[in-house]
Amino acid sequence: MAQKASIPKGTRDFNPIEVAKRNYIIGVAKKHFELFGFQPIETPSFENSETLLGKYGDEGDRLIFKILNSGDYLSKVEDEELKSMDISRITSKISEKALRYDLTVPFARYVVQHQNEIEFPFKRYQIQPVWRADRPQKGRFREFFQCDADVVGSNSLWQEVECIQLYDAILKELKIPDTTIKFNNRKILSGIAEIMGAEDKLIDFTVALDKLDKIGEEKVKQEMLSKGITQDEITRMQPVFRMHGSFEEKLDQLEKFLVDSEIGHNGVEEIRFVYQHIMGSSLNCKLELDVTLARGLDYYTGAIFEVSGPKSVNIGSIGGGGRYDDLTGIFGLKDMSGIGISLGLDRIYLVMEELRLFPKTVSNSVKVLFVNFGINEAAASIKAINKLRINGISAELYPDDRKPNKQLNYANKRDIPFVVLVGEEELAENKYTLKRMKSGTQSLLTIEELISELESF
Amino acid sequence: MAQKASIPKGTRDFNPIEVAKRNYIIGVAKKHFELFGFQPIETPSFENSETLLGKYGDEGDRLIFKILNSGDYLSKVEDEELKSMDISRITSKISEKALRYDLTVPFARYVVQHQNEIEFPFKRYQIQPVWRADRPQKGRFREFFQCDADVVGSNSLWQEVECIQLYDAILKELKIPDTTIKFNNRKILSGIAEIMGAEDKLIDFTVALDKLDKIGEEKVKQEMLSKGITQDEITRMQPVFRMHGSFEEKLDQLEKFLVDSEIGHNGVEEIRFVYQHIMGSSLNCKLELDVTLARGLDYYTGAIFEVSGPKSVNIGSIGGGGRYDDLTGIFGLKDMSGIGISLGLDRIYLVMEELRLFPKTVSNSVKVLFVNFGINEAAASIKAINKLRINGISAELYPDDRKPNKQLNYANKRDIPFVVLVGEEELAENKYTLKRMKSGTQSLLTIEELISELESF
Repeated sequence: MAQKASIPKGTRDFNPIEVAKRNYIIGVAKKHFELFGFQPIETPSFENSETLLGKYGDEGDRLIFKILNSGDYLSKVEDEELKSMDISRITSKISEKALRYDLTVPFARYVVQHQNEIEFPFKRYQIQPVWRADRPQKGRFREFFQCDADVVGSNSLWQEVECIQLYDAILKELKIPDTTIKFNNRKILSGIAEIMGAEDKLIDFTVALDKLDKIGEEKVKQEMLSKGITQDEITRMQPVFRMHGSFEEKLDQLEKFLVDSEIGHNGVEEIRFVYQHIMGSSLNCKLELDVTLARGLDYYTGAIFEVSGPKSVNIGSIGGGGRYDDLTGIFGLKDMSGIGISLGLDRIYLVMEELRLFPKTVSNSVKVLFVNFGINEAAASIKAINKLRINGISAELYPDDRKPNKQLNYANKRDIPFVVLVGEEELAENKYTLKRMKSGTQSLLTIEELISELESF
Repeated sequence: MAQKASIPKGTRDFNPIEVAKRNYIIGVAKKHFELFGFQPIETPSFENSETLLGKYGDEGDRLIFKILNSGDYLSKVEDEELKSMDISRITSKISEKALRYDLTVPFARYVVQHQNEIEFPFKRYQIQPVWRADRPQKGRFREFFQCDADVVGSNSLWQEVECIQLYDAILKELKIPDTTIKFNNRKILSGIAEIMGAEDKLIDFTVALDKLDKIGEEKVKQEMLSKGITQDEITRMQPVFRMHGSFEEKLDQLEKFLVDSEIGHNGVEEIRFVYQHIMGSSLNCKLELDVTLARGLDYYTGAIFEVSGPKSVNIGSIGGGGRYDDLTGIFGLKDMSGIGISLGLDRIYLVMEELRLFPKTVSNSVKVLFVNFGINEAAASIKAINKLRINGISAELYPDDRKPNKQLNYANKRDIPFVVLVGEEELAENKYTLKRMKSGTQSLLTIEELISELESF
């Protein structure tokens, strides 16, 4: 019996149109990454397990796809261990490699491994698939692409300026309307916690604050209380809930509020530097100071970014990033400050699809189909096709001499815009009948005229 | 203690220069695939195990990387089974997914799964990594890219003509010298076996014959004898060893030799058709009739191709392919003839590297570095940099105001061809000092002059 043709849940096939659209987004991102001086690297799909495990928390470890050792993998497992049914112990014996979970840890590993070949600051981008054994659901896949650009080796704030400009340039060329770059700084969050007197509850405090958009002020406060943050502490941070006005106005309010916190003050200064120098350029996106923005807080040490997509599409953030002061320390290279941004390709795809933003020219369909009327006509067609290709015009011969209607139908279904007919008459005259599929009009042309018309299309 | 930064054996990191060179080859292949009317698809990195297992022989099954089920994967294994230590039984219980071993089986699965959305004949190309748990050695990796173009849904011989032209177009643009496209047909091999009276030993016979190039006539005959092919049978095929002359002369000799074999005669006719219609175009590669060429014989049913690289580089074949009449049958779709070619990216890379064939322009280094002389100069530089980028010129600011020499050194090491100096003087004059790193010359330019010179480079 034939096997059923199917793919694992959470994975996807991409057909030619989907590949073309995805490549369009990737192409725009690459173009701007390179205009900004980032260079591509690629790392292996799987890493040694110890490179990945322990980097993403317990939940992350669970979601990492592990690869079974080849050969007689059980021979390394003691009978005792096998009987214990201790999954994590057995796994470490029968699996030594795991699929990449994100691009950040492999990048850190890359930087440390190749530190002697790299000129710092090192600006790299990387667009590769990652895998997570997550429960698949709408918009969440087990294999998906990440698209990251990072700089390591400098803590210059000009890089924060550049990150914002880079987001803006990409989103502008993709013509995604109504996007907002939210901007915050870990030091602001630390400063608020300091003013509250709740430095020891920084994580609980920011996790709760991060939900302000979704659940509102009262529920945020309830959550804080439930996490052991006192009513007094919450009262001291009340001004944070009351911030309003433009970016600069909010920043001024924040500065006053944080006047007694050195780290908070530093955060304000950093944001002010970036804001001042961004304003020299004209941004397409809206830039918003959002003191509730935390993202993976234990990870970022300075700037934090998040890009939200158009409100008309219910999709959440389409990108994020920030500064991290010690990415490579775990692999033994200290004091390497880095900053990076990431684009959510799948979400950007969904936004562009929903708002019909893909240019009509995004297609990789062949431009011309030559109808096959038999061996002599086909032989002449192949020669003409070669001439078209040399001139950069994609062309193909229908391989069999089926009924012309069937062949024209094939051209239609494949969205091929032009068909060339080479029958007895054309063969005798050494000419080509060009049929424009959209209008249905046709003309009898020499090869030069044919090339000229198709080139200009 | 810090972890060691390393990658699994048989895998590779690619640095920016390597990525650029690889993308150059891939870009040329894609360009010609599309000029010939092929469209890209992508399939998931892992497939359900039953899709892959049993398709590549026992050795293949062993070399397929299996992915461990997530969660408590041992719960599905009975105690009995565990005690049996029967690896293949246990594996099927603890692993349901496996990494792609090649692009052909996933393509067959794709065609069957999406048959109702596809217009046949379907011309697809696919450039994605594959994984094999092979013993790593020079030029053999556990993760490598395959680059395939196939057509399914027609048995027209025009496709054989196109495959040869496609190979030729790609190798011509890559400027790889001294390449030979070897051409054979499974029907020729069947015909020879028929004439010998050794149809039942076809595989052993072709496996031995395939080695003629490497081990010579005598050893081939010894191997045939050792496999139970009789001296009489070998004697009857003697003319095959004596074929000589041009493509057409060899084909004539072959036709006479195979006159009493219907299948052999068909093979000759097919080759003659392709040869006649290829000769209408001018090939860059040498086209050679090679009756010893077998490749995966149990797979191909008609044309067989192999491309050998320049003799000056000891690399073997850099591509191969052929026609297969029943690729999709295993997934329940019968009578789908297909033909495909494959390019060996890693080997082509090695050839181009060894013969220094990569164009000098293959680089993704940024074009201009602005030296950082401090905050005011940097602020002015960022504005100029934005103007360059809008004009398609990649540019970056050195993020810190280190000593100018250090910054110039950085530009040198990163192969950045131009440096712009914006110091106090330039700031006052609203001009830019362009330093050409190769010649060392420099000029004081307006922004328009700067853009104009950099654009023309």
